[in-house]
Amino acid sequence: MREVAIIGIGQTKVEEQWDKSLRELAGDAALAAFEDSGQTSVDAIYVGNMMSGSANSQLHLGTYIADWVGMRYREAAHIEAACSSAAAAFRSAVLAVASGDVNCALAVGVEKMTDSPSGEITAQLATAADADYELDMGVSFVALNALIMKRYMHEFGWQHEHFAPFSINAHANGVNNPNARFQSPITKETYLRAPVVAEPINIMDASPMGDGAAAAMVVSLDFARYLGVKSVQVVGSAAATDSIAIHHREDPLTLSAAVTSARQAYSQAGITPADIDFFELHDAFTIMSALSLEAAGFAERGKGPTMALDGDITLTGKLPVSTLGGLKARGHPVGATGLYQIVEAVLQMRGQAGKSQLERTRYGMTQNIGGSGSNIITHIFKSL
Amino acid sequence: MREVAIIGIGQTKVEEQWDKSLRELAGDAALAAFEDSGQTSVDAIYVGNMMSGSANSQLHLGTYIADWVGMRYREAAHIEAACSSAAAAFRSAVLAVASGDVNCALAVGVEKMTDSPSGEITAQLATAADADYELDMGVSFVALNALIMKRYMHEFGWQHEHFAPFSINAHANGVNNPNARFQSPITKETYLRAPVVAEPINIMDASPMGDGAAAAMVVSLDFARYLGVKSVQVVGSAAATDSIAIHHREDPLTLSAAVTSARQAYSQAGITPADIDFFELHDAFTIMSALSLEAAGFAERGKGPTMALDGDITLTGKLPVSTLGGLKARGHPVGATGLYQIVEAVLQMRGQAGKSQLERTRYGMTQNIGGSGSNIITHIFKSL
Repeated sequence: MREVAIIGIGQTKVEEQWDKSLRELAGDAALAAFEDSGQTSVDAIYVGNMMSGSANSQLHLGTYIADWVGMRYREAAHIEAACSSAAAAFRSAVLAVASGDVNCALAVGVEKMTDSPSGEITAQLATAADADYELDMGVSFVALNALIMKRYMHEFGWQHEHFAPFSINAHANGVNNPNARFQSPITKETYLRAPVVAEPINIMDASPMGDGAAAAMVVSLDFARYLGVKSVQVVGSAAATDSIAIHHREDPLTLSAAVTSARQAYSQAGITPADIDFFELHDAFTIMSALSLEAAGFAERGKGPTMALDGDITLTGKLPVSTLGGLKARGHPVGATGLYQIVEAVLQMRGQAGKSQLERTRYGMTQNIGGSGSNIITHIFKSL
Repeated sequence: MREVAIIGIGQTKVEEQWDKSLRELAGDAALAAFEDSGQTSVDAIYVGNMMSGSANSQLHLGTYIADWVGMRYREAAHIEAACSSAAAAFRSAVLAVASGDVNCALAVGVEKMTDSPSGEITAQLATAADADYELDMGVSFVALNALIMKRYMHEFGWQHEHFAPFSINAHANGVNNPNARFQSPITKETYLRAPVVAEPINIMDASPMGDGAAAAMVVSLDFARYLGVKSVQVVGSAAATDSIAIHHREDPLTLSAAVTSARQAYSQAGITPADIDFFELHDAFTIMSALSLEAAGFAERGKGPTMALDGDITLTGKLPVSTLGGLKARGHPVGATGLYQIVEAVLQMRGQAGKSQLERTRYGMTQNIGGSGSNIITHIFKSL
């Protein structure tokens, strides 16, 4: 397997982008990655997106975006894995370059959600869950996560307020990110007084939707070195699934797909969790932050919130997470999120994270979760 | 790049499968491929599907199918490239195994179309075209192909009746395929008297929709040889795009994406068109058969129908096409079609094509077209 590296990144601001079409959003991020990398052409484009077929009446996004960014005639495809679509698209780029068949691949994640009525978007997001065994019971996607959180609190004795530091940390870091949807800090009181969405999940536990796109340019490590550009090596890349319906899992409080993909990624990188300097985790809901920390080997089972309460996850803590706002403050345009995480990891490792800049960035990890933990993709990056 | 081979295949009949759910259809094809290959586990599953998000209220098909066929915890993703989704999923499997990161990959294509009202399906199929520049003008997907056919007839002096042999050949071969939706021959009179869909395309020019699934198991060539099972080598695999909107093309009568991907595939295989023994082409419409023969180097520009009129495309002709019925008679469950083509090529090369069995099957080629020629994937297989 050929070693691969990222030589360029691009992103748009996450917000209600009513003046930009789906192709313009994806194009802005893609063209920024072209410019950042110094490349003028690619061999293949992999587009991560969840629900453009219903939200934007447009499928076939590989061709659609390739055409728009001037890469007509090149290979292109659309990759979907619910909210982990963008990491899946990035992994497609990694495997294509690793195979040697493709020399330069662009991964773009894009989602344009705010044009649709919110009820419709809720229904579309729910297609990430099991239509026959979950949705037919009338449950929404937030409600599924609320069931997990409630059980977790019951099982391990946590109160709702103990999840506040995840949200407070994300918002504190989002202040430093000009591309974040929310760039204002919140207090514990804001968190406690926020309106409930699906008990116990309130608005400050849940990440906001948004329109946005992010992109990364992938080449072989040898070519990156030849170019002499500032690049970041992909030293771990792994994906794993779990049952799509939560009630079919052996243990609904363990993200088995995260355990599996993180272990594989550590093994590929030849490191342990102790070597990771920061972790862009998938804080779609605060409960997912806790479960991710546990599944990736940073906290014991049932102890995820302890790390947050102890301040370990802040920019000066032992394991900074959501360093540029995470899903909670940057926003969660679902099919783009995995590439936002990767773009932010690269910014940290290139020393371009502004006021969120960390000191130690030798190894960075990203983890993108699709469905309610049913498809989890872990990447580990190494500074060169 | 590691060499790869197909060690197992599976398919369901194409028909109105009202008694089978989406997961049951995909599962039936996948489990048949497991049994055929003798494998009990895979590392990754790539699911080709176009429109389950709208037609079946279910996305996240990678996880959904992996879970259903007992491959929970393995990697999985859903690949979409409109009507070339299944070939794109197969190519993902090829690249994953070629990279060395994945040792055994299953590609499954599935589409369940007949549960939706036909007007809705027509709208969903149109998401393969350009929503902003084509669909907003009120054109349907068939109408786009009718525009191409009309222009082709005008430009090169063909009459509608000259396209009849494509349809007659497909139906003649479909008689030999127990999985074909239509297993009865048609006459030239049937063709000429068929009701018009979008002039000049009539029902006998157009392939029927259907529900179905097809699958192929991909491993390294070395592993296939070690297993000692009857396998088929993948010697060419290439994908290319064109503009998504037809009117943006330099020449709407040339399938540039087919020219590009076929050339790349020939080059990888180290052969020329003359070496190809049979060609499973994408006869979604008779005009596409003519354009494919030209783009892949078998006929000169504007001369595609000549091959059909001369009998070159029949089972005993110079280049048999649609040997088990093609899209026209087997049926076109869009996101599954590319894998049906591959399954049928493997059947030919293993000598299991029944009354459609060809004598010479050293090299077989498949070509799957997404959109109105905007994403075309060519594979070349070699008998071992």
